Amino acid sequence: MAKELKDLTKRSDNYSQWYNDLVVKADLAEQSAVRGCMVIKPYGYAIWEKMQQQLDKMFKETGHQNAYFPLLIPKSFLSREAEHVEGFAKECAVVTHHRLKNAPDGSGVVVDPDARLEEELIIRPTSETIIWNTYRNWIHSYRDLPILVNQWANVMRWEMRTRMFLRTAEFLWQEGHTAHATRDEAMEEAVKMLNVYSDFAEKYMAVPVIKGVKSANERFAGALETYTIEAMMQDGKALQSGTSHFLGQNFAKAFDVTFVNKENQPEYVWATSWGVSTRLMGALIMTHSDDNGLVLPPHLAPIQVVIVPIYKNAEQLADISKTVTPIVEKLRAKGISVKYDDADNRRPGFKFADYELKGVPVRLAIGARDIENGVVEVMRRDTLEKSELPIEGIETSVAALLEEIQDNIYAKALKHRQSMTRTVETYDEFKTEIEKGGFILAHWDGTPETEEKVKEETKATIRCIPLDGDTTPGVCMVTGRPSKQRVIFARNY
Amino acid sequence: MAKELKDLTKRSDNYSQWYNDLVVKADLAEQSAVRGCMVIKPYGYAIWEKMQQQLDKMFKETGHQNAYFPLLIPKSFLSREAEHVEGFAKECAVVTHHRLKNAPDGSGVVVDPDARLEEELIIRPTSETIIWNTYRNWIHSYRDLPILVNQWANVMRWEMRTRMFLRTAEFLWQEGHTAHATRDEAMEEAVKMLNVYSDFAEKYMAVPVIKGVKSANERFAGALETYTIEAMMQDGKALQSGTSHFLGQNFAKAFDVTFVNKENQPEYVWATSWGVSTRLMGALIMTHSDDNGLVLPPHLAPIQVVIVPIYKNAEQLADISKTVTPIVEKLRAKGISVKYDDADNRRPGFKFADYELKGVPVRLAIGARDIENGVVEVMRRDTLEKSELPIEGIETSVAALLEEIQDNIYAKALKHRQSMTRTVETYDEFKTEIEKGGFILAHWDGTPETEEKVKEETKATIRCIPLDGDTTPGVCMVTGRPSKQRVIFARNY
Repeated sequence: MAKELKDLTKRSDNYSQWYNDLVVKADLAEQSAVRGCMVIKPYGYAIWEKMQQQLDKMFKETGHQNAYFPLLIPKSFLSREAEHVEGFAKECAVVTHHRLKNAPDGSGVVVDPDARLEEELIIRPTSETIIWNTYRNWIHSYRDLPILVNQWANVMRWEMRTRMFLRTAEFLWQEGHTAHATRDEAMEEAVKMLNVYSDFAEKYMAVPVIKGVKSANERFAGALETYTIEAMMQDGKALQSGTSHFLGQNFAKAFDVTFVNKENQPEYVWATSWGVSTRLMGALIMTHSDDNGLVLPPHLAPIQVVIVPIYKNAEQLADISKTVTPIVEKLRAKGISVKYDDADNRRPGFKFADYELKGVPVRLAIGARDIENGVVEVMRRDTLEKSELPIEGIETSVAALLEEIQDNIYAKALKHRQSMTRTVETYDEFKTEIEKGGFILAHWDGTPETEEKVKEETKATIRCIPLDGDTTPGVCMVTGRPSKQRVIFARNY
Repeated sequence: MAKELKDLTKRSDNYSQWYNDLVVKADLAEQSAVRGCMVIKPYGYAIWEKMQQQLDKMFKETGHQNAYFPLLIPKSFLSREAEHVEGFAKECAVVTHHRLKNAPDGSGVVVDPDARLEEELIIRPTSETIIWNTYRNWIHSYRDLPILVNQWANVMRWEMRTRMFLRTAEFLWQEGHTAHATRDEAMEEAVKMLNVYSDFAEKYMAVPVIKGVKSANERFAGALETYTIEAMMQDGKALQSGTSHFLGQNFAKAFDVTFVNKENQPEYVWATSWGVSTRLMGALIMTHSDDNGLVLPPHLAPIQVVIVPIYKNAEQLADISKTVTPIVEKLRAKGISVKYDDADNRRPGFKFADYELKGVPVRLAIGARDIENGVVEVMRRDTLEKSELPIEGIETSVAALLEEIQDNIYAKALKHRQSMTRTVETYDEFKTEIEKGGFILAHWDGTPETEEKVKEETKATIRCIPLDGDTTPGVCMVTGRPSKQRVIFARNY
């Protein structure tokens, strides 16, 4: 581990390499034999499971139920919604055959040409099409609405440049797909789920986010409006962390989903969809971690507290263990996940560095003299500060410390974002500032052409039109035309 | 619903049609637009989620961790293990391209011939190959072992004849993949997980199962030994409900996975794999349900208790609701999931039949006079018996009733299995008895040829060689050759 730590690139040397190193060395994920697809290792998956459980709870509390729709989508379904197919056709994994057979030359197996599918199937890049094709049979009357369904699933988008968690060909996600009787109700749902995502990001991931609306260029393919939460990473780049779409009646029209309203008139159904993915793992890692490894928010850490015994012989270990057992019980009784690492084949120093690398929020170290003094040594991962705490009442002080760490890393990330957010008036100023990273608040004339020009010239895009931002009008920094409010420009992942 | 119930085929008329009707009418699942793939609807998925949560808990309690491996497997990986490829090549969905493009004639999208993959990828039918290719890098020394990993995932096997839950092209499952330093440890793991499955089936699904070993013909492709749990459905057919495989060193050899043992010698790693799938939903439905609909075991029912108010006017409803609120609270405090259905747009008779169809274990009905008398009407779904219970202490009596129902449906299924299990001595007797359904205990000479002959002539296969069965030797009913013990023959799903 000392070795592993030494191999961890420093953020200041190469932020991107630091991220890749950390994902691998902290045992979160690794590249697989299949291009662009990762293996999520048990420690990484344990964090994802905690995210899933919390999100799932929040979805159910807001009235949603889970269901499951097919992995494969008939190719023709994609073409039904013009913008949707435009957005996804170029990155689809296509299933063309349903059988292999032995190669005539005995060299293995080959695709059996006799098993060609009549219509090719694509692996879902997202499920609007198959789901709206299903909803047609579920919806007849306004009494059948709303439908509030979510799906936890794998999806595939054949991306050319991939990075673990941030952009992979296959990724895990949830996709909510709701159906409503009115435009207003659908719009309300889209905003409600944006708020669920932002609550989750801020309260569990400790990642401050800006809620906003996407410009037309950045909208989901097939949406009338895309809401987003945008986070800022330590290098000043933006990371889109979750989106919620108001789909209008686009998919209802494409799949002929109508209902009879209260006035007994047929009407197309209104839709939303919303999703977050394993990309959140990338946001989590890049927001908080440091040159010693991961820093995990206590609310999502699979191990919140690790206890390491410091001993010279078996007798001392037995004494320490006797003291540790009730501490573990009391912590667990408070719902805190604890690991007592009394493994004999690794030395304390090795363990310390390993749990630092893994981002365990609180480490307790306890030796023979500590027992005499009735204290333990406490190290908090966020600041790496050590202190002594009395064993008496340790469960209360550790519980408080975990909340303090949760708050502190959120505050730190927020402060970083604030320090990296600037307002500019002119395009020249913009070009200078964007090179320094961060979010730039600037006026924009609202046209795709201007956005495109800025992107081409500076690699920055409009991350969002903030919902809670300053709505003072002004003039576009590029064209001088009227602007309704400042928008956020940034380079992004 | 009265209507829906009328449409439910009776078991005695057509068992198979009854099953299909029930799956659809109880809102568990439906066919999708993709051949052989189903949509799991929210109510069906809620049952599957309860199964998942319990199984996941049991896996973690036995030391396993979850991880996630890629959906797609390079075609060449399959060929590495000879029996494995033989077993799965004929039912593989094959991805050959990674892009669609607009059809030249403007008719939609077509596969882009320029986006052909260098090597085809198959959608995992099971993940031994991709996982053992990954384990090669995880395992170096005996200190890296055991690896105890599970994955919750979708898999695809291109089956020609499909039935919802029982046999679908895509299905959801978990697959455990473990790696061990010794043969004994791997064997122990395979048996341990068989026991986890059998505990789950009996204690949660209330489905009695027979634990046994598969004959060579019925073994998993690539396994040295396959353990199974076999359940009997109401029509007397067997349903294989879960399997656990001792894979020996087959996959370690195929993917060159070695470790240095304590004696500093290189050795191939020993493996197991084990899985249960959404097929368990089929077992659950077919074991307990009746002509009125689903019968769900209380331990897996998404709604354990439904409360239906019987009222004439809004005032009465308000009175009843006042009485019901504390009942709901007390039941929830006991961890019981309750639904109070005070919807005004459906009459009590409709609600009664609907919750019967959905298999809710306990129904409470409460009217104005019941409140005066301090009682509620209780209907238990398993026997359809009604009784009155005092409101005072209702939470205790309902909790006890739920356990009673759980025990009763298990006992009923066990009694049914026992009554449909017979011992035969001669092949003539066997041919007569197998027509009546059920499990037939008979002597077999242990050869694949004899098993094949019986299958061809009677459509019955050896479901398993029971682990806890009578081990008195005898002579094979077909060939008269020596037999070590009786085995279980049956027709199966």
